[in-house]
Amino acid sequence: MTCASADAIQRHTRRDDAPHSSFHLSTLTRMVLPRHIGFIPDGNRRWAVGNELPKEAGYAHGIEPGLSLFEQCQRLGIEEVSVYGFTQDNTRRPTAQTEHFRSACVAFAQEIVRRGAALLVVGDERSSQFPAELAGYRQRCAGGIKVNFLVNYGWEWDLDGLRTGQLHSEQVSRMELIVRWGGGRRLSGFLPVQSVYADIYVVDELWPDFDPSHLDSALAWFQKQDRTLGG
Amino acid sequence: MTCASADAIQRHTRRDDAPHSSFHLSTLTRMVLPRHIGFIPDGNRRWAVGNELPKEAGYAHGIEPGLSLFEQCQRLGIEEVSVYGFTQDNTRRPTAQTEHFRSACVAFAQEIVRRGAALLVVGDERSSQFPAELAGYRQRCAGGIKVNFLVNYGWEWDLDGLRTGQLHSEQVSRMELIVRWGGGRRLSGFLPVQSVYADIYVVDELWPDFDPSHLDSALAWFQKQDRTLGG
Repeated sequence: MTCASADAIQRHTRRDDAPHSSFHLSTLTRMVLPRHIGFIPDGNRRWAVGNELPKEAGYAHGIEPGLSLFEQCQRLGIEEVSVYGFTQDNTRRPTAQTEHFRSACVAFAQEIVRRGAALLVVGDERSSQFPAELAGYRQRCAGGIKVNFLVNYGWEWDLDGLRTGQLHSEQVSRMELIVRWGGGRRLSGFLPVQSVYADIYVVDELWPDFDPSHLDSALAWFQKQDRTLGG
Repeated sequence: MTCASADAIQRHTRRDDAPHSSFHLSTLTRMVLPRHIGFIPDGNRRWAVGNELPKEAGYAHGIEPGLSLFEQCQRLGIEEVSVYGFTQDNTRRPTAQTEHFRSACVAFAQEIVRRGAALLVVGDERSSQFPAELAGYRQRCAGGIKVNFLVNYGWEWDLDGLRTGQLHSEQVSRMELIVRWGGGRRLSGFLPVQSVYADIYVVDELWPDFDPSHLDSALAWFQKQDRTLGG
């Protein structure tokens, strides 16, 4: 059995098992779901400022939305997702912020593993910015939906792997769809190789204001894009 | 003198010399212009079909818009532009199409050199798909505005350069803004390294329907984006 057909069966099964999906089953069975979606959950700091909190307080408010999005993807039967945690660029921010986004990333990662994610953490583990708690996930753990979580990730670090062999993100497949929260219309160094043919959907709401309808809208929009893969 | 200050002086001078700019001078002097803009002129074939022409007839209708956009960038004092000509992926299309887009690219390249572009053609010249007429532009020619023209370009070919030394597009600088025509919200393999921090502006009109107001709108939008460069 090829991976593709295994995938089709798996997704078919999951759709039938998906009473909590925000889409009706009749819609889902007609939809072409992306196999792999990338998520850029931007806007935590702006959300905190808008809610009269210190900037660093925003990150903790991004955990529950992340778990909600993870479960939505599980229910839909998405095979693989990639999530921007934090970057090497981000670690130049004030210590109060770096501590908060690191602990938020650790909490999120540990919880999705508990909920059945096949987690792979992608990032430069040679730095003290890489959380020791995630060292065990540098190889993908067993589980269901594949989650590639970018932690202390850098696009230059990733590409530098090519100089001596392969991308540091070699185990991450090509994305078909990227969803970014917070209104920014850019990739900010998010997996430059895997994003080459991805359709990019921008949600203007800030990440802590995540609602499942955002992904529903992105998937409905994705249906209408032609898939040329550069051809 | 640093490059940045030379650049500022050059742009200031050019703005004063720009009576034909679509912006009023009073607007321009307040604007932060991107130093380097990427252009993805998509939609030639859809335009041809919509105008009851054979698909391949669309490419010739993309030349005049390209020259118009080039002159607009010259007048604005943009320092560097990158233009998607055609890709190695594109060369898998029917011969009628490949012949037409190759000749359109040659005509465009030769004309912008005549009009003062410092042209650099970036693409895999080892293939018969690379137009012989452009072989002389594999090193940047002297001139004014830098134009990087992607001809028989492939993102994998580009990155493969890293395995033995440097990117094949090493001479192309980072882009701040990318403008894509034809409604597609994706990069389609366009300079993955130089696009990492670029803001992406999408024009729904098809490329042969180019109007200078499209770039004006993109530049006005660009003013409102915060420039974090991943930080």
